[in-house]
Amino acid sequence: MGEKSETVRFGILGCAEIARKVARAIGLAPNASLCAVASRSKEKAEKFAAENGFPASVRVYGSYDEVLDDPSVDAVYVPLPTTLHVRWAVMAASKKKHVLLEKPVALDVVHLDQILQVAQSNGVQFMDGTMWLHHPRTAHIHRFFSATSTNSIGPIHFIHSTATMPASPEFLENNIRVKPELDGLGALGDLAWHCIGASLWAKGYQLPTTVTALPDATRNDAGVILSITASLLWDQPNQTLATIHCSFLSHISMDLAICGRDGSVHLRDFVIPYQETSASFDLTFGAKFVDLHIGWNVRPEEVHVANQLPQEALMVQEFSRLVANIRDCGLRPLNKWPEISRKTQLVVDAVKKSLELGCKPICL
Amino acid sequence: MGEKSETVRFGILGCAEIARKVARAIGLAPNASLCAVASRSKEKAEKFAAENGFPASVRVYGSYDEVLDDPSVDAVYVPLPTTLHVRWAVMAASKKKHVLLEKPVALDVVHLDQILQVAQSNGVQFMDGTMWLHHPRTAHIHRFFSATSTNSIGPIHFIHSTATMPASPEFLENNIRVKPELDGLGALGDLAWHCIGASLWAKGYQLPTTVTALPDATRNDAGVILSITASLLWDQPNQTLATIHCSFLSHISMDLAICGRDGSVHLRDFVIPYQETSASFDLTFGAKFVDLHIGWNVRPEEVHVANQLPQEALMVQEFSRLVANIRDCGLRPLNKWPEISRKTQLVVDAVKKSLELGCKPICL
Repeated sequence: MGEKSETVRFGILGCAEIARKVARAIGLAPNASLCAVASRSKEKAEKFAAENGFPASVRVYGSYDEVLDDPSVDAVYVPLPTTLHVRWAVMAASKKKHVLLEKPVALDVVHLDQILQVAQSNGVQFMDGTMWLHHPRTAHIHRFFSATSTNSIGPIHFIHSTATMPASPEFLENNIRVKPELDGLGALGDLAWHCIGASLWAKGYQLPTTVTALPDATRNDAGVILSITASLLWDQPNQTLATIHCSFLSHISMDLAICGRDGSVHLRDFVIPYQETSASFDLTFGAKFVDLHIGWNVRPEEVHVANQLPQEALMVQEFSRLVANIRDCGLRPLNKWPEISRKTQLVVDAVKKSLELGCKPICL
Repeated sequence: MGEKSETVRFGILGCAEIARKVARAIGLAPNASLCAVASRSKEKAEKFAAENGFPASVRVYGSYDEVLDDPSVDAVYVPLPTTLHVRWAVMAASKKKHVLLEKPVALDVVHLDQILQVAQSNGVQFMDGTMWLHHPRTAHIHRFFSATSTNSIGPIHFIHSTATMPASPEFLENNIRVKPELDGLGALGDLAWHCIGASLWAKGYQLPTTVTALPDATRNDAGVILSITASLLWDQPNQTLATIHCSFLSHISMDLAICGRDGSVHLRDFVIPYQETSASFDLTFGAKFVDLHIGWNVRPEEVHVANQLPQEALMVQEFSRLVANIRDCGLRPLNKWPEISRKTQLVVDAVKKSLELGCKPICL
């Protein structure tokens, strides 16, 4: 058990579909191991463990409390419906379990602040489950935003992103993400979270000045957002506008375009890369029209970035590194991750408020 | 002169940079020939003719009136500053010259209607200079919008387009496109014309219900628009939102993304293709995430479309075909082209009005 004792031991609260992916990621991350899984019934948890081939060492519980009371559990991954986040994330943190919380992290920033406060006062690491932030492509692209880089795209003027996926009639009827009592934010929480996060990321996590919903939002009969478009405006140090579009009603798209003074970056799979082992982006610098404007002097360059581990395993690895630093070396939790979550949530809240006020601009 | 007598004979009013491109296109189009060129001074016109290697048969005039009074001229191409369009397009049409008018066609629809009325009452063909509409790629893509097509992208839910180009300090100081007395619409006329046109084209030239400027427009000291973002909303038969972003202040981009229920189309060079002899677009159908959502089942397919002639020569060819039909076969002018121009102008006007009213939504 020598090496294993150094890994961060995860418990998973709930058997959501996405828990399968993160359970696999915990298995792939070299500094993490899965040690417990719980559902509201032991039968469901056992079925989940069997279906995913968990080793016999993984304890299976019929209640979330049992995971939180298991002293061998360092950290929990919480893929529960958003409405339940505040209860279980607070409970986990108060029992000194580090919290990897699925996005959207909360119904609003008031709830999130309850979670973050308890996490802070208990000295546990908080991180949300935004996987693409941990892909090496993301860091690679970010270098082109730096003003000091020799090949910077310059001040960013415009950002456009989409996150759409065609929900089946069954999903639109029954999925937790369209139920007001479970995931009341609908597509705003599930999909726009990524677009808002990408816009903030491109802008170095400066909050926008103004957030405005555009007039095409659609809701289901229960009032849950099925599609939404919004704009985010930064008015300094240089003006930037971001448009985001998210929908459960359209074909899959995950476009991200970042256009600066001197160049642009384009991705079409920014949330979930086309494949696991490498991802690419298109970079355009110094484009000019040739004489007579009958063509361009350059085409976008496709830049490939290989990754040893899938992005979700890199997320688990980074989270586990921070947890091990706290557990084994007495370091403090890293504020970066809860701050990113909180800023994203603030913009989510502003979009929701703008929508509720008939697309009125909301100042942050 | 047997074959030449069947070509449509063009006169060009003005020696703008873009006149070089269209003069070349007139030379390339099999059913067109250049027969006259005018500038405000004969010296300028002679210099233009010499620099572009026009044959000696091309008459060179020191005033626009002389072109309009030349009985061998069938049609004029008018690349003058927008402010002068109404005067010279009306004059040309009233002298029975068919009019190929550079975009933006007019400062507003009132001016445009003066032109179109005179064109109609004189039985002359009108067309604006939007070249990409004539590229075979454009027609090729349009097939995927048809509800009856077996591989339709389905109802269009979202359209995003950009037209940006980095203007030099010299351009921003001196170019006619940033002078209120010459091209008062600035980037709205020069660039947003294309984005608005592409959105209307994708929606089968149904006018949007509502047009709203977004809050990031920038103007120069003289009040001319240098960058602008706007949204267009169609609320039936199915809801569609289009966002457009145009700027003289950013790196070149000409993105067009059309996302439907069942698929999507992406271009990055929709106004001016990367190269003259073929163009491509990306088509995505039936994309799904693979199990565990760790990748996609398909990637976009790059579809190449070859063109025998550059898009501007195809534009001249189509215009000349219609002119020849009128001149030689007694047909009536085709209403399609002035209608497209007029709808585009109506949306340009609405964006301008929304901007002037502090980004208020404008109903059409």
